[in-house]
Amino acid sequence: MILCVTLNAALDVTYVVDQVRWHSGNRVVSTAEHAGGKGTNVARVLHTLGEYVVLTGLAGGGTGDRIRRHLAAAGITEELVPIVGESRRTLAVVDEAAGDATGFWEPGPAVRADEWAAFVRRFHRLLADATVVVLSGSAPPGVPDDGYASLISLAGDAGVPAVLDVSGAALRIGVTAGPAVVKPNREELAAATGHGDPWIAADSLVSAGAAAVVVSAGAEGLLASTPQRRWVARPPEPLSGNPTGAGDACVAALARGLLAGNGWPERLADAVALSAAAVLRPVAGEVDRDAYRRFRDLVHVEEV
Amino acid sequence: MILCVTLNAALDVTYVVDQVRWHSGNRVVSTAEHAGGKGTNVARVLHTLGEYVVLTGLAGGGTGDRIRRHLAAAGITEELVPIVGESRRTLAVVDEAAGDATGFWEPGPAVRADEWAAFVRRFHRLLADATVVVLSGSAPPGVPDDGYASLISLAGDAGVPAVLDVSGAALRIGVTAGPAVVKPNREELAAATGHGDPWIAADSLVSAGAAAVVVSAGAEGLLASTPQRRWVARPPEPLSGNPTGAGDACVAALARGLLAGNGWPERLADAVALSAAAVLRPVAGEVDRDAYRRFRDLVHVEEV
Repeated sequence: MILCVTLNAALDVTYVVDQVRWHSGNRVVSTAEHAGGKGTNVARVLHTLGEYVVLTGLAGGGTGDRIRRHLAAAGITEELVPIVGESRRTLAVVDEAAGDATGFWEPGPAVRADEWAAFVRRFHRLLADATVVVLSGSAPPGVPDDGYASLISLAGDAGVPAVLDVSGAALRIGVTAGPAVVKPNREELAAATGHGDPWIAADSLVSAGAAAVVVSAGAEGLLASTPQRRWVARPPEPLSGNPTGAGDACVAALARGLLAGNGWPERLADAVALSAAAVLRPVAGEVDRDAYRRFRDLVHVEEV
Repeated sequence: MILCVTLNAALDVTYVVDQVRWHSGNRVVSTAEHAGGKGTNVARVLHTLGEYVVLTGLAGGGTGDRIRRHLAAAGITEELVPIVGESRRTLAVVDEAAGDATGFWEPGPAVRADEWAAFVRRFHRLLADATVVVLSGSAPPGVPDDGYASLISLAGDAGVPAVLDVSGAALRIGVTAGPAVVKPNREELAAATGHGDPWIAADSLVSAGAAAVVVSAGAEGLLASTPQRRWVARPPEPLSGNPTGAGDACVAALARGLLAGNGWPERLADAVALSAAAVLRPVAGEVDRDAYRRFRDLVHVEEV
């Protein structure tokens, strides 16, 4: 089982408006909602590809109940730990006339010390059946700074490799616990390490404890660094679309590659193809399966 | 007891953003929410002024539960009838840098025939203790076109006068049931009657069955028409601010004046003063009580 963690589970809400009048009032033509948060998107991609996933994290209030209901409807097994705080919503206002969207992200709920302790116990129990853990996204207030590092250490003690997709202090502290893969994007990598050159920055995370660093560089594809070798993987064609979905699909592919024991060129080709297949879908957590199959043989991976 | 009706109860949500970046992503600094819908605002104003109010209407789902919780916290007695559909949210995104807000109004839930029948039974039971009923705002889909007219007729049969603040077909059909007062604004009056001249338009509603028509004309104040006489009531100073709150406060004052049996000049002076006191508050349903007292003697009412 692949254990996906989304500490700050969200309800993704979409408002469709014919033509948004800013600084005025707008009738919403239609609304849609689904379970969100980066870890949730990773779980949905893996579920679509036929993997057995369990999603854990923290969720509370009426919004937490709705997140659980949407996960059940999507067929995803959840082991979200209840909290007193109300889970956040992330709103996308789609402007049909402009053909784009404006996002509004609510702050996450505060997590109490006893709630975090209950989550760690649940995570520890779930590790017994896990083959890989994937840790994604920001932590809500109240989670300790070394929270992700603790989870990676627990996984390591249980012999379960971890894939980490976080930013800032959570990334800097997380690598010290020895994750199998970390996947920052270029901006996150530069911010967390202070190095503008992605190879120098990636090597600094490897030195700090990460077994491998995979850097997502948008339309340029992926850069990967391990203690021994470096690769660049380029997409088959220029990509534009939904970058959130692409990053989460990349993480899903890296988790699968780790599980399968594939070599790095194969893992990276797969991750680029799956990202490309996700960019084509407007909703994060979905992938275009035909495009994925088509792209897989077209990715160019080069050792550098 | 003043019985306020809000058929399309809403949860008013406010997102505060430092400086909104349209067509991009925004972190919400703080969120706030309270029970909304025009009838709810009227009930809150009356409650603030010490009147005993009961709020009824239709509310469903998790959003309906939150509306009930906010009403309880505000000390307002509610007799909202449950529906299967999810109550709507109305979102205001406040742009701190621009000093204004953008509104997004979700569509209302569909109401089933048996739910409407249950509401009519509840309304009928509540009429036994009511001295005035106030009917405000749009009806959700599924409420019959003559829904408001039926409620006014039931109130009339029970000897309870009705104040009606609706637009479109609900206003055109509603007046035929003989409400004591209807309160359209100028645009609603013109749209419902097809007459650009507000006096001709108001007289057409009187002819159709309304005992009195009070027209809110923004900064110009109020125009009132009864079968015998006409008045104009002008505010003490030019007003600008929150027009939703002003209209609902006006309706609250008209209901109180009807209950007290005041003459029209006094009722209109009170309605203009209370509207002015509401315009000064950013949240609909609140009034500046000091301003209300100060304005009351300064309104100019003239028979025309």
